[in-house]
Amino acid sequence: MSDAAATSGRRGRSARRERRQSGAGTVGAPYITRNIPFYDVLSDEAAEIIEANADRVLAEIGLEFREDPEVLSIWKAAGAEVDGERVRFPKGMLREILKTAPSQFTQHARNPARNVEIGGKNLVLAPVYGPPFVTDLDQGRRYGTIEDFRNFVKLAYMSPWLHHSGGTVCEPVDLPVNKRHFDMVYSHIKYSDKPFMGSVTAPERAEDSVKMAQIVFGEEFVDQNCVMIQLINANSPLVFDATMLGALKVYARNNQACIVSPFILAGAMSPVTVSGTLSQVLAEALAGCALTQLVRPGAPVVFGAFVSSISMQSGAPTFGSPEGSLLLNGASKLARRAGLPFRSGGSFTASKLPDAQSAQESAQTIAATVQSGVNFCLHSAGWLEGGLCSSYEKFVLDADQLGMMHVLAKGIDVSDEALAMDALQEVGPGGHFLGAAHTQRNFESAFYRSSVADNNSYEQWLADGELDAARRANKIWKEQLRAYTGPELDPGIDEALQAFMADRKSSFPDSNV
Amino acid sequence: MSDAAATSGRRGRSARRERRQSGAGTVGAPYITRNIPFYDVLSDEAAEIIEANADRVLAEIGLEFREDPEVLSIWKAAGAEVDGERVRFPKGMLREILKTAPSQFTQHARNPARNVEIGGKNLVLAPVYGPPFVTDLDQGRRYGTIEDFRNFVKLAYMSPWLHHSGGTVCEPVDLPVNKRHFDMVYSHIKYSDKPFMGSVTAPERAEDSVKMAQIVFGEEFVDQNCVMIQLINANSPLVFDATMLGALKVYARNNQACIVSPFILAGAMSPVTVSGTLSQVLAEALAGCALTQLVRPGAPVVFGAFVSSISMQSGAPTFGSPEGSLLLNGASKLARRAGLPFRSGGSFTASKLPDAQSAQESAQTIAATVQSGVNFCLHSAGWLEGGLCSSYEKFVLDADQLGMMHVLAKGIDVSDEALAMDALQEVGPGGHFLGAAHTQRNFESAFYRSSVADNNSYEQWLADGELDAARRANKIWKEQLRAYTGPELDPGIDEALQAFMADRKSSFPDSNV
Repeated sequence: MSDAAATSGRRGRSARRERRQSGAGTVGAPYITRNIPFYDVLSDEAAEIIEANADRVLAEIGLEFREDPEVLSIWKAAGAEVDGERVRFPKGMLREILKTAPSQFTQHARNPARNVEIGGKNLVLAPVYGPPFVTDLDQGRRYGTIEDFRNFVKLAYMSPWLHHSGGTVCEPVDLPVNKRHFDMVYSHIKYSDKPFMGSVTAPERAEDSVKMAQIVFGEEFVDQNCVMIQLINANSPLVFDATMLGALKVYARNNQACIVSPFILAGAMSPVTVSGTLSQVLAEALAGCALTQLVRPGAPVVFGAFVSSISMQSGAPTFGSPEGSLLLNGASKLARRAGLPFRSGGSFTASKLPDAQSAQESAQTIAATVQSGVNFCLHSAGWLEGGLCSSYEKFVLDADQLGMMHVLAKGIDVSDEALAMDALQEVGPGGHFLGAAHTQRNFESAFYRSSVADNNSYEQWLADGELDAARRANKIWKEQLRAYTGPELDPGIDEALQAFMADRKSSFPDSNV
Repeated sequence: MSDAAATSGRRGRSARRERRQSGAGTVGAPYITRNIPFYDVLSDEAAEIIEANADRVLAEIGLEFREDPEVLSIWKAAGAEVDGERVRFPKGMLREILKTAPSQFTQHARNPARNVEIGGKNLVLAPVYGPPFVTDLDQGRRYGTIEDFRNFVKLAYMSPWLHHSGGTVCEPVDLPVNKRHFDMVYSHIKYSDKPFMGSVTAPERAEDSVKMAQIVFGEEFVDQNCVMIQLINANSPLVFDATMLGALKVYARNNQACIVSPFILAGAMSPVTVSGTLSQVLAEALAGCALTQLVRPGAPVVFGAFVSSISMQSGAPTFGSPEGSLLLNGASKLARRAGLPFRSGGSFTASKLPDAQSAQESAQTIAATVQSGVNFCLHSAGWLEGGLCSSYEKFVLDADQLGMMHVLAKGIDVSDEALAMDALQEVGPGGHFLGAAHTQRNFESAFYRSSVADNNSYEQWLADGELDAARRANKIWKEQLRAYTGPELDPGIDEALQAFMADRKSSFPDSNV
């Protein structure tokens, strides 16, 4: 980075900080609203074929709902054929049930300027979810801690390109498994004012998450509005397990959003083909989403799809593959046709470090995410090593890429000012545009300004220390954490949250299951 | 890479080598035919607005055709208003002239199995063009030589994902400027049998290129068929210079293809906006393309657009930007509406090394290239440092990415076999698909197999030496050059080419202009 760029970067950051501290409360757009068309690889006819096959899967094969008699009763009452834990669905039944599901809904943040709209043309970007490991160029790879967790919450808070604080930005492995959800939910509330996700690892932890949200938003408000969104994975193929069903019921009952996501590595957990996998994805998502509506009609629900493939040589999961992009694109169309918001995408990569492989695979998936019509993108920053590791440098690199997606999603402006006929007339053949009046009027907002890319000459780059993108990102996240100042949290709410957590934590012993 | 993967890679390579040596003569598809829809960011209405503005630019501002009285006479005879070197075009004139231009044509290779179709739904991928420098991880950055040139020709020949041998894969700076075109054209003919590009740096060098093609293909065949394609850049804004006009006339007269390309860094050489730049691109391309039709009606011609932007802070060119993608996408639609094949795209980056920035920027542009409808993609592998440097490692990384694009462009198969209902029925809830009959039938061709990506576990990756993607690519290109065996060239043709070059080279002194 040249001195000038570094200075301007610093100026930009402190200006944003001032804006934030001045109470405006928002940095960047609260979410993306696409001004570009959806890109559909799947034709309507092809979508119909896949839908017919999903109907057959639902009616002939069915799904298993394991170790949850209540769910089986719910299905039976709704008219499904229940045979042990196997449930089969007459054609059309699930789509009828899903008529109560909203096609778009608001997830409220504790700062209303950061509320997000999930569905329609909107795209909400949330950070990586789930890795037990973290890594950075200084300390290398190690188990995540609650300090790392807070750091990623802070980085997501500071990025103008992430709309959401996410959920398990990394596993805080230094805390007991059965109590870490308190500290995770509290960190999202305390260190950010963007919307966040609740715990799904046990029904009682889901209840705890809801109670903490009630302390922040009020019981009545939580019952009437979505303030948390949760990740409910199917145990593909065609199984939902008791843990996920338990969490789903708690959240749906409380009117909080569930993302029902088939979690599929094609070739192992689904057929080795894109259209075969799509039939399964649709069957699993329709069943899981419909269940939320039986628990509470009208509860917000999102059709999810975490779909990639495996290497058929080694069995290793692969990410950012062309098949992954096609699956994402096809599932997006199927969700839209089902009238449900869609979750997919992310900065996927199997790479172990923030290198060319990681960037290529992530870019491949993010491009598909933006164009296909994804409404909620989990894992949009920080993901490394097939989701086993949250990377500080990758987080910065991904966030910059997400900034570019904001520009791409705006499409092409053909207003008179954008058409710039006056500039063309002023400059004419052989001239140059830097000094044109139109350029002077528009240059500040003209082009996306990357925080990481080095566009300088080779000589300047040598003089600046020959840093690659990962090393520049390393400087940036450290600078951001040093500069972090959190949003204010009402001291009464803070105290109430802490009292609740202390009380609950002391009511049962630590455990690592 | 695991031992198994490495072995399978080696097996794959030697199998391909055997196929090639067995005379089948083709590896991979000779070009991509898209089975996915074009993705248009620009609506029809927006395209019409830009077309109307381009018409105004052509009629009111006009273009300059410098130091070429013959071209001015051609325009005058065709009905344009010629005022000194400024030429203005009445509305509709250029589109009328362009009616003789083919919307699709064949470029013949000396191996007919490698002929490419340029236009329509097709995409032809050609390597980087023009860098004076080359770089690799062993020797670092230095001026290119004819040995480097030959190496890149060989690498493009060996890649199943590059369809074209390209042109100036790097500048052979060790040869005199006024004679290096002989060795460049000869290298494409000798070391590859894929289609290639001729010299455009002076009209007599264009003539030499045509004569060498005539030795290979025969005079009559060259007159009736396209066997070379050439890059004719506009000197934007709104200027064509004598060098480019001279080369354009030679090639058009000989029925060889010209790619007429506005070369634009928006903000400096065009307005600071996407739609303003598109108006200019369209005006320049229509004028240059129409000129080929006045020289020889029916000569193959391609609407080109090399469009990126500059940093409005430092003035440095930027690549892989969201504005670049929008420009590419918009220009693609304008070319399609003009009925002309379209050239754009590439593995663009401003990065100085094959790092995350280079991969992210390249992936961004390549995704837009595949979806937007580009027919001829120059710079699709090897580009680094804003086009100043051809990188051996980047070439390998890019080629792998191009392989993925072949899969993406196939779209989603919904044949009965692809739908895999038998696998879904066989496996059922909670099973896994690895052993299913359908998987056994399809796994070999199921998923794209990257030659560079490391999908192994962290532990395996550590054991393999903790290589990043660039270091793995470094091994691959060296292995490929060691394994290279060239296509056969008829000894009579080879001798005739060498005699022609020796004769011509001795007829004028070396010069570096």
